[in-house]
Amino acid sequence: MLAHGSGGKLAHELVESSFLKALANPLLAKLDDSAVFNFSGRLAFTTDSYVVSPIFFPGGDIGKLAVCGTVNDLAMSGAKPLYLSLSFIIEEGLPQGELSQVVDSIQKAAQEAGVEIVTGDTKVVHRGSADKLFINTAGVGIIPEGVDISGNNARSGDKVILSGAIGDHGIAVLSRREGLSFSTQLESDCAPLGGLVADMLAASSNIHSLRDPTRGGLATTLNELAKQSRVSIRIEEEKVLVRDEVLAACEMLGFDPLYVANEGKLVAIVPPEDTDKVLKVMRENHYGKEAAIIGEVRAEHPGRVVMKTCLGSSRIIDMLVGDILPRIC
Amino acid sequence: MLAHGSGGKLAHELVESSFLKALANPLLAKLDDSAVFNFSGRLAFTTDSYVVSPIFFPGGDIGKLAVCGTVNDLAMSGAKPLYLSLSFIIEEGLPQGELSQVVDSIQKAAQEAGVEIVTGDTKVVHRGSADKLFINTAGVGIIPEGVDISGNNARSGDKVILSGAIGDHGIAVLSRREGLSFSTQLESDCAPLGGLVADMLAASSNIHSLRDPTRGGLATTLNELAKQSRVSIRIEEEKVLVRDEVLAACEMLGFDPLYVANEGKLVAIVPPEDTDKVLKVMRENHYGKEAAIIGEVRAEHPGRVVMKTCLGSSRIIDMLVGDILPRIC
Repeated sequence: MLAHGSGGKLAHELVESSFLKALANPLLAKLDDSAVFNFSGRLAFTTDSYVVSPIFFPGGDIGKLAVCGTVNDLAMSGAKPLYLSLSFIIEEGLPQGELSQVVDSIQKAAQEAGVEIVTGDTKVVHRGSADKLFINTAGVGIIPEGVDISGNNARSGDKVILSGAIGDHGIAVLSRREGLSFSTQLESDCAPLGGLVADMLAASSNIHSLRDPTRGGLATTLNELAKQSRVSIRIEEEKVLVRDEVLAACEMLGFDPLYVANEGKLVAIVPPEDTDKVLKVMRENHYGKEAAIIGEVRAEHPGRVVMKTCLGSSRIIDMLVGDILPRIC
Repeated sequence: MLAHGSGGKLAHELVESSFLKALANPLLAKLDDSAVFNFSGRLAFTTDSYVVSPIFFPGGDIGKLAVCGTVNDLAMSGAKPLYLSLSFIIEEGLPQGELSQVVDSIQKAAQEAGVEIVTGDTKVVHRGSADKLFINTAGVGIIPEGVDISGNNARSGDKVILSGAIGDHGIAVLSRREGLSFSTQLESDCAPLGGLVADMLAASSNIHSLRDPTRGGLATTLNELAKQSRVSIRIEEEKVLVRDEVLAACEMLGFDPLYVANEGKLVAIVPPEDTDKVLKVMRENHYGKEAAIIGEVRAEHPGRVVMKTCLGSSRIIDMLVGDILPRIC
């Protein structure tokens, strides 16, 4: 009901019965306007809003996504994720059961990621003024001493590591979308990558760049890195893992898996001398067991991404133009 | 267009042409997944989503509101607001001119509040899946040494200070709402209160509680404080300032101004010995010049808020039940 977003009695009841119980921790329980905690060091701060449709999909839901997405943005800065904020925009009429299911997913994902939800907000809008549920999470994390990770740091000669198969999230969400559903065994790869990044940083304090190829897919992420670092990136098609189900769906729908979103994968740019040890720890982690070197960084043609295809030819890989899959995250 | 939220080329162009230009600062310009800065001390962290309708209203717009609201939540914890995140959920078809106007307001409000927008996100959803524009901001601030402000800290004998007239924001927004517009000179009180709070904390390090009476109005805020601190609060109707235009609109619409939202007011719970010096600095600040003591904290009937009316009778003031004004912030 609209009144659940009023700030009044029903809003307080909703917060107490649904959110405080599931997400219980001392910082949240104070119910002040801000969460307060001590912090000393380099702080990473990020935010994302999640508008995925449908809100439940194979392998996850909007709640799990909202935790993992923001945890991963922190991890991609080399930070250990610590605390999240959580803000709901709810369409009037969303069944309380669906909201509870999402809150449960949030709790489980936060637990796995080792983060706490410490502050939040709830708004309810009229039926038709939103689509079921939008979630925003912001997050803070701490960057360990000596870590310097940025999209600006890729250097010629660095290797490009991809942590696993691409396209699972986009195709899994799409398989359940109204008017388009098709049957597949595929699940979203949605996962918190803070642990994987911690393992990688323990193996090498010299990782140059990390990024998770979400909206826009691997192609867009590589273009961002090439542009920010003023380098080119050359990858090999045969090294990029794509599951058969994703390939089949992409062929059917006319998509290129390089542009399909992921929510549990990362790209790491690593100096050649550290590549072996980073790859080793990645493959020992559940979320990196299919990690592989897919290419390298070069100095010529700054900003350009090129792929050597399976046929041996070279293809320039541009950033995503237009939007093949709206509301994928 | 949907593609402006794709994470691809158009999204990058939008970020660069609209957001980076207006909100320029070195942290944002890095375009990494998180903003990174050094921090040492007690950190306040908060979030709010803004769904106000219409997005432009007398005295402000959704952009100004999104900055002020989160700045004020930080200030109500006694923090000096430092950095904000900014996340847009845009309905496909929102004119670029309106978005630019909102971004300009954000820039101006951030400048006045002394905060920087350091990280952000943009999503675009299909026409009809949102209502023009929703904004989430999260914020971090630093709490000075010796400050201990919480809704739990009100003590029997404390005085209740209100910084000015109530109801301006709610009635100003309502006056422009579709199907309900009426003419009034009234403007929203939407304002960043970080400076006012800094002045108050400089005058007394012994302020017990601060809260801004937004959704649910003064009545709901006082109930929250009484409940959290397990005290009762007694206010006097004749001490609570309400402008004639607000009174007139409330009579016409059947509202009680005690429940109408404010976006530039605060309630302070202050021990009696510090009241004079706090009031003095408040009245010297532009945003506190009508500050007054409106009541006091008592031990009996924990959780209850009572108002002595102009007629001399006593009335129990409950929390807002239902929602008189959806989408007011």
